[in-house]
Amino acid sequence: MQWISDSNVLIVGLGLMGGSYAKALKRLGFHVSALARRQETIDYAIEHGIIDEGSAGVDERLISGADALVFALYPGVFKDWIRDNQQLLKPGALLTDVTGVKRCIVYDIQAMLRPDVEFIAAHPMAGREVYGVENSDDRIFHGANYIVTPTDKNTPEAIEWCKSLGRILGFGSISVLSPEEHDKMIGFLSQLTHCIAVSLMTCSDNRHLVDYTGDSFRDLTRIARINDSMWSELFLLNRDELLAQMDLFAGEFQTLRDMLARGDAEGLREKMRLSTERRAWFNKK
Amino acid sequence: MQWISDSNVLIVGLGLMGGSYAKALKRLGFHVSALARRQETIDYAIEHGIIDEGSAGVDERLISGADALVFALYPGVFKDWIRDNQQLLKPGALLTDVTGVKRCIVYDIQAMLRPDVEFIAAHPMAGREVYGVENSDDRIFHGANYIVTPTDKNTPEAIEWCKSLGRILGFGSISVLSPEEHDKMIGFLSQLTHCIAVSLMTCSDNRHLVDYTGDSFRDLTRIARINDSMWSELFLLNRDELLAQMDLFAGEFQTLRDMLARGDAEGLREKMRLSTERRAWFNKK
Repeated sequence: MQWISDSNVLIVGLGLMGGSYAKALKRLGFHVSALARRQETIDYAIEHGIIDEGSAGVDERLISGADALVFALYPGVFKDWIRDNQQLLKPGALLTDVTGVKRCIVYDIQAMLRPDVEFIAAHPMAGREVYGVENSDDRIFHGANYIVTPTDKNTPEAIEWCKSLGRILGFGSISVLSPEEHDKMIGFLSQLTHCIAVSLMTCSDNRHLVDYTGDSFRDLTRIARINDSMWSELFLLNRDELLAQMDLFAGEFQTLRDMLARGDAEGLREKMRLSTERRAWFNKK
Repeated sequence: MQWISDSNVLIVGLGLMGGSYAKALKRLGFHVSALARRQETIDYAIEHGIIDEGSAGVDERLISGADALVFALYPGVFKDWIRDNQQLLKPGALLTDVTGVKRCIVYDIQAMLRPDVEFIAAHPMAGREVYGVENSDDRIFHGANYIVTPTDKNTPEAIEWCKSLGRILGFGSISVLSPEEHDKMIGFLSQLTHCIAVSLMTCSDNRHLVDYTGDSFRDLTRIARINDSMWSELFLLNRDELLAQMDLFAGEFQTLRDMLARGDAEGLREKMRLSTERRAWFNKK
């Protein structure tokens, strides 16, 4: 399937990400439908021109009419949906997703999926600290990273299709990683950083410090505002990698602590110089 | 002394902070002079209208002519300067500073200081990740926190004078803490966050992850670009408090890690809910 604008795209799960996909795709001229849990979500999205049509729960006509489906569901719900509804899919349909963990999703879904449809996984690394279709905004894609995570089961055509989806949505960088590489990367860059922010916020009751806070503390804890149901599920689904990254960080933090405890100024300075040097790689281009 | 604009202010140490003080005070109409280590710093500052006059090293005329002095030096250098040069100060002169640690500075300097001059300590919680008078910018004060840290030795007049200095420099919030409260607060809000950022950057060689970085990682490591000579000195001068804050954080991080290891979803969610609730206090007003 090419990205021709008379394709029917079905968004399954109409929260912040699903809504943002819908907005971008509708603006590009696609016919966009959606399934959500609640009718109010669908009503809101139609009223605000975010989707063309939609339905609460399962809708046979919308599912069987879709050339492409974007799954923006929690990981567990996503697998259940495929198991229960895949018989309704149009032959040749292409499926993709937005899930933040990959190993636990991609192989299971590809293993259970009908042979005449294809699932190619992707992780759009964009988001906001707010939720729901009301807060959806496709500008969050601009300049952000979009990662396609194919397996041996994927065809070159589907991989190319998925990359082009990232491009037309406006992502700044499109890349390809294996599910394993993806989960290791996300364990470090995203999940570990959220664990740090949460721990910094919960380690003591610091309400009396609000008046003294500078940007450092605000920056480090911005992501401490966190959707507990989604993130606890993502953490547990990537448990082995996240534990490895947490232990790596905790060991290094302990090393720094011990240098401080024994007054090792030169050791501290060396760590700071390394840190400064490495941080320069991560400046925005 | 009142903040009347024909007062002579001497800035001792003309880096980023000293230069930013100079810019703000000169704009307010004060006669601003400065002492720096290098003549080039003085030349640059005069050429760019940052100060009225200045000198490399010690200058008897400038020191004895100053009604107010702002010390923007590293802690150790600051104490040496007072010991070596206080005999030159004008009787009645008021001294303040910008040092990021307080217990180790304030008591020692007040103990050695002549009885006819007064040192009232302050910490302007503003900065940039760049250095030197060339990067000075008094807009960094706007909306930031300014903390006065008096002791029993300070007069109400000097405390009021120091608070009014913070006000005229443009700080958003002026408050008063004891040196002990200050060092505990700064250990948590600033020094601990820098230790975390450094450890995150040094715990593994992640150059290959640059292409996948989102805002979370960038936000948490912005302050990993760090002046190693200044910060190692500040860490070591606040060692006991910083160690206590590091241990508090490390213990909480370990708790979160153990919840993840044993698959305690409800425990993780509870931490995330607490974190979300507490983070709301720290939203910018």
